[in-house]
Amino acid sequence: MTAMSEMMAFVRETELLVQIQSRLAWDQDTVMPRGAAEQRGEEMAALAGVLHARRTDPRLGGWLDAARPEGEVEAANVRHLKRRWLRDTRVPAELAAELARATSIGRGVWAEARENEDVAAFLPTLSRIVKLRREEGEAIADGGTTAYEALLRDYEPGATEAGVAKLFDGMRPRIVALRDRLLGAPGAPTLNGNFPEAGQLSLSRETAERFGYDLNHGRIDLSAHPFSSGSAFDVRITTRVSEDPFNCLYSTIHEVGHATYERNIRPDFAFTPLGEGVSMGVHESQSRSFENQIGRSPAFCRFLFGRMTDIFGDIGVSDADAFSRAVNRVSSGFIRTEADEVHYNLHVMLRFDLERGLVSGGIAAEDIEEAWNSRFAADFGNAVDRPSNGLLQDVHWSEGLFGYFPTYALGNVYAGCLVAAMRRELPDLDSSLEAGDPSPATEWLKRNVQIHGGLREPGDTISHATGEDPGEGPLLDYLDEKFGALYGL
Amino acid sequence: MTAMSEMMAFVRETELLVQIQSRLAWDQDTVMPRGAAEQRGEEMAALAGVLHARRTDPRLGGWLDAARPEGEVEAANVRHLKRRWLRDTRVPAELAAELARATSIGRGVWAEARENEDVAAFLPTLSRIVKLRREEGEAIADGGTTAYEALLRDYEPGATEAGVAKLFDGMRPRIVALRDRLLGAPGAPTLNGNFPEAGQLSLSRETAERFGYDLNHGRIDLSAHPFSSGSAFDVRITTRVSEDPFNCLYSTIHEVGHATYERNIRPDFAFTPLGEGVSMGVHESQSRSFENQIGRSPAFCRFLFGRMTDIFGDIGVSDADAFSRAVNRVSSGFIRTEADEVHYNLHVMLRFDLERGLVSGGIAAEDIEEAWNSRFAADFGNAVDRPSNGLLQDVHWSEGLFGYFPTYALGNVYAGCLVAAMRRELPDLDSSLEAGDPSPATEWLKRNVQIHGGLREPGDTISHATGEDPGEGPLLDYLDEKFGALYGL
Repeated sequence: MTAMSEMMAFVRETELLVQIQSRLAWDQDTVMPRGAAEQRGEEMAALAGVLHARRTDPRLGGWLDAARPEGEVEAANVRHLKRRWLRDTRVPAELAAELARATSIGRGVWAEARENEDVAAFLPTLSRIVKLRREEGEAIADGGTTAYEALLRDYEPGATEAGVAKLFDGMRPRIVALRDRLLGAPGAPTLNGNFPEAGQLSLSRETAERFGYDLNHGRIDLSAHPFSSGSAFDVRITTRVSEDPFNCLYSTIHEVGHATYERNIRPDFAFTPLGEGVSMGVHESQSRSFENQIGRSPAFCRFLFGRMTDIFGDIGVSDADAFSRAVNRVSSGFIRTEADEVHYNLHVMLRFDLERGLVSGGIAAEDIEEAWNSRFAADFGNAVDRPSNGLLQDVHWSEGLFGYFPTYALGNVYAGCLVAAMRRELPDLDSSLEAGDPSPATEWLKRNVQIHGGLREPGDTISHATGEDPGEGPLLDYLDEKFGALYGL
Repeated sequence: MTAMSEMMAFVRETELLVQIQSRLAWDQDTVMPRGAAEQRGEEMAALAGVLHARRTDPRLGGWLDAARPEGEVEAANVRHLKRRWLRDTRVPAELAAELARATSIGRGVWAEARENEDVAAFLPTLSRIVKLRREEGEAIADGGTTAYEALLRDYEPGATEAGVAKLFDGMRPRIVALRDRLLGAPGAPTLNGNFPEAGQLSLSRETAERFGYDLNHGRIDLSAHPFSSGSAFDVRITTRVSEDPFNCLYSTIHEVGHATYERNIRPDFAFTPLGEGVSMGVHESQSRSFENQIGRSPAFCRFLFGRMTDIFGDIGVSDADAFSRAVNRVSSGFIRTEADEVHYNLHVMLRFDLERGLVSGGIAAEDIEEAWNSRFAADFGNAVDRPSNGLLQDVHWSEGLFGYFPTYALGNVYAGCLVAAMRRELPDLDSSLEAGDPSPATEWLKRNVQIHGGLREPGDTISHATGEDPGEGPLLDYLDEKFGALYGL
């Protein structure tokens, strides 16, 4: 056995245990009896302990030193493993334990503060989590990297704080200009009909299959917050049902994007570091292009209008064009997760700037609400009316997820690049979409992005698929064109 | 930290990982996508590897040597842990791996042989598994113990081959005599009605709750073979639906017996060796007494007749007495799992004698079908018509489960002892059962057996509850009385 093959055998077992974490997380959010919650926490902690011991096992360091990788696959494995090894061994055990405790308490404190619209109750917790994550960022930072950048690169390897800031600065004026033009256009219709749960679920299921979701290796269940979990041969998604049937449908399509990525990676990458989506941003590029560029395209909307009328009868919208505008309704609301494609990135930019300030120390926790509200008023033209519509709307910071928000907008940028290249190669895509068949698009993404898993770095994954360096241009062109046409600007 | 407390902290984590095994097994048999089966096998193997390493961790041996247990709880923990440690470290790693491979293949070979009624196709596999398990039994045997006895004691600590043989020899004549008298009695009626799935499941659910099943810490789902899985705060059961509504109902009550045992153990025993049922035999005593002595009692049948008539309308049986006979129908069929209370133990005795012969080498694999068929003809008065009704009916041997069958009959014997003692203490039990309330009985079992978990050895668990050494008398008296009265013998 070479160091390389010994290491990969060890890593394979670790990755299989990571899959078990996914099963437990799925169980917890879908079928677990309520009274089992505390025990589940202890089960998860025991498994996390086993995984931490394996990830910091001194043999890994030795194997990494001794490994002589051959070919691009072995080289990519070693690259991922070295990065993880450095990260996992640089965080002091006491800090990791303190962070685990603080963030596990944090979520509960946040939920209660949000319920009570009580920012002050959340600030001490936020302040402590910021401090601990700053320490973690400093511990894992490579030379010249800020603490925030180190956290960001945990989710998006290779990204830089300055690079993301520059990208966002380049996007903002054109998005604001489009938004301002749209505010002057006539409003979009809303659906009006009867949308029973069974119909929503059967539409979601058939649509998931149209988008390539493989029910032989997956399931669709209900959960409070839709998610995708697992890799390789067991990738499950959840959805939710509300009065608005688009919520269930587009949550499903979004999760199918994540799930097909995990499912479609080359089988020989399974249970290696290459056997999962390469970054949060690239992951989001799949879910976003499935949901928005494909699922909300006017061409697919024409198909969907017919299906929904078949299933639900009169849905209160007279024709496919009006339906397309209902699907692509634009409004400058408070809530990120309900935002349309135009406003979504503005929500992310706000959070990116504020969390950089928190982690660098430029913004103190006690000033964060004021900073949020004034930035929101400037970007969205509305005063935040209550904390649950502002600072307290997202769970992320209470769980210590600093550096995570920008990957949502990176995902949109990547999706813009991918779909522009796809449409150059597939000039007849819209006629397939109109016929209810997104498979040319999903197969293109499978072939050009998904099968490669973690073989290339995130940016290289996109440029390998598109032939160009990723940039904001294609996304902004797409938004201008689609919304301009829909609203007759 | 003392050796004792260090050891118990380590064991607690191990036991939490064992709980994760239960979640995965539950998932596999209820909700897992079909295409995920192979991956699940690898996930389970990775977790089994972690558990094996922990169970044979040299530190455990050191802690066990150094531990100075105080009080009966610590003493019982050390007793269990020493027994397991010896067992786990005595089996050579190559033998364990060979057994894992042989039995994982074995089940598939058995299923195909059974499908094709082809005994010859199964014999080489059976022969190999017998040989490997014999070697394992020899490896773990204490001085003076046969290989078979060592395997038996793995399921039923403290049991001896001679003791079980003597017990069974003592039972057989009275069971055969009762059976012969019953064969001359008029037959029992059968149900005739319409039993839709929803009604069967709602009856099973309400009955499970009557028997003390806690849905806040459990679930009821469907699976091909009903089972109970998990311990402490997450104990789930499954059932199945067929044309015969008794199948669903009594499978459920049986599994509730297993599940309440795991659920009701003292909370401070959770995630220690005392936090699970103490043996297969004692476990079966709970499921059997729930299902048979309580669930099939004429008193509970009177209640059930009313409930089933309410739910299903005309069920083809005119009164509660006839219904009781339908529930307690006696017939000498081929299949163990369909056997009535009178015949069941005869099925077990047949397997016990044959498997002792296989493991000792007294019966060669190529002679086992002939041995089965001649014993069946002698005990049941019928010629086996095909292998799936004979040698190939049970999965157990294909999985290497030698020494397991006798624990089913031990469970019946223990249940006989427990319910006899319970009825002495609860003279009015039948009036509660007639009112549909088995809680005096289930609470008695909880108080006297279940909460104690693994604190006492199996036989001591029963005698502590009943005040008497366990023996076959109470079971045989119960069978004579109940079936004598039902069939007017």
